[in-house]
Amino acid sequence: MRILGIDPGLRTTGFGVLDVEGPALRYVASGVIQTAQANQGDLPARLKILFDGIHELQARYRPDAAAVEIVFVNVNPQATLLLGQARGACVTALVSCELPVAEYTALQMKQAVAGHGKAAKAQVQAMVQRLLHLPAAPRADAADALGLAITHAHAGRAVALLQAAGLGRSTSSMYRRR
Amino acid sequence: MRILGIDPGLRTTGFGVLDVEGPALRYVASGVIQTAQANQGDLPARLKILFDGIHELQARYRPDAAAVEIVFVNVNPQATLLLGQARGACVTALVSCELPVAEYTALQMKQAVAGHGKAAKAQVQAMVQRLLHLPAAPRADAADALGLAITHAHAGRAVALLQAAGLGRSTSSMYRRR
Repeated sequence: MRILGIDPGLRTTGFGVLDVEGPALRYVASGVIQTAQANQGDLPARLKILFDGIHELQARYRPDAAAVEIVFVNVNPQATLLLGQARGACVTALVSCELPVAEYTALQMKQAVAGHGKAAKAQVQAMVQRLLHLPAAPRADAADALGLAITHAHAGRAVALLQAAGLGRSTSSMYRRR
Repeated sequence: MRILGIDPGLRTTGFGVLDVEGPALRYVASGVIQTAQANQGDLPARLKILFDGIHELQARYRPDAAAVEIVFVNVNPQATLLLGQARGACVTALVSCELPVAEYTALQMKQAVAGHGKAAKAQVQAMVQRLLHLPAAPRADAADALGLAITHAHAGRAVALLQAAGLGRSTSSMYRRR
């Protein structure tokens, strides 16, 4: 199973690709999609760069699933609106590739990667480097995206364990009842 | 020239299609894309409905250009974030169809349609009905979308008049200087 993690942003969207092979995680690729080449004021052109970039990742790496960060309200409402549109473009690009999209908060990602939800950026970068046996720490946006992919791998493993223990059905009906 | 107007919303996105033939506007179609069929909590599925809906409109009506409302910050920041993502999905769908996307505020639309920026929803609906010779007033979301298409038709006419008067080049360089 190959997972594509996406940390959405209007200026810089991080991505990370990894393979899950049983208990092992294997690094495939990571980096960023930058929209700085478009005119700052031209939002449609910037959203198109995000859409095309994600389609390029899909064509190159053929992931089986995507994990996207749930973004939060910013102190600046205008920035919130722009971030929302960037995230909308990223999620839309993923679903238009027919990829199942899982969503995690930064807190969940930090808990999965660093063991606690208040981990600093540098800690996330260091833990992602260690977990994926990388020669150097990835840049922050790419580390967050790889962290989201790791979070999704852990979540999938937890569901598989529950199912193996015969708890899968009761768990999912429990979730449905909410 | 055929224009597709889009009034983005997460629950209901209005659309309106019209043809511009010289000074005349001809109504083609209008309606809404509803995402209520998807699970409320499943944002990716709702954004996919918006993306697929706009692609369906593009395939059916083959517009030459799109006009989308510029959304504003809501009193509820969480609602702002959701609206931003819905608008991001709509704009992404339009640019992925290779459509040029123009953006107008509700104020600009109301000025173009009703003559003043504080027009009430019912006034916009009545003026759209009159301008397009419709047998009845369209519902509010569809009227706003048709209003955006009308605004874009007016804007295009203004540019054409300036160009005919030999003012096109100086105007655009004036804009460029800002």
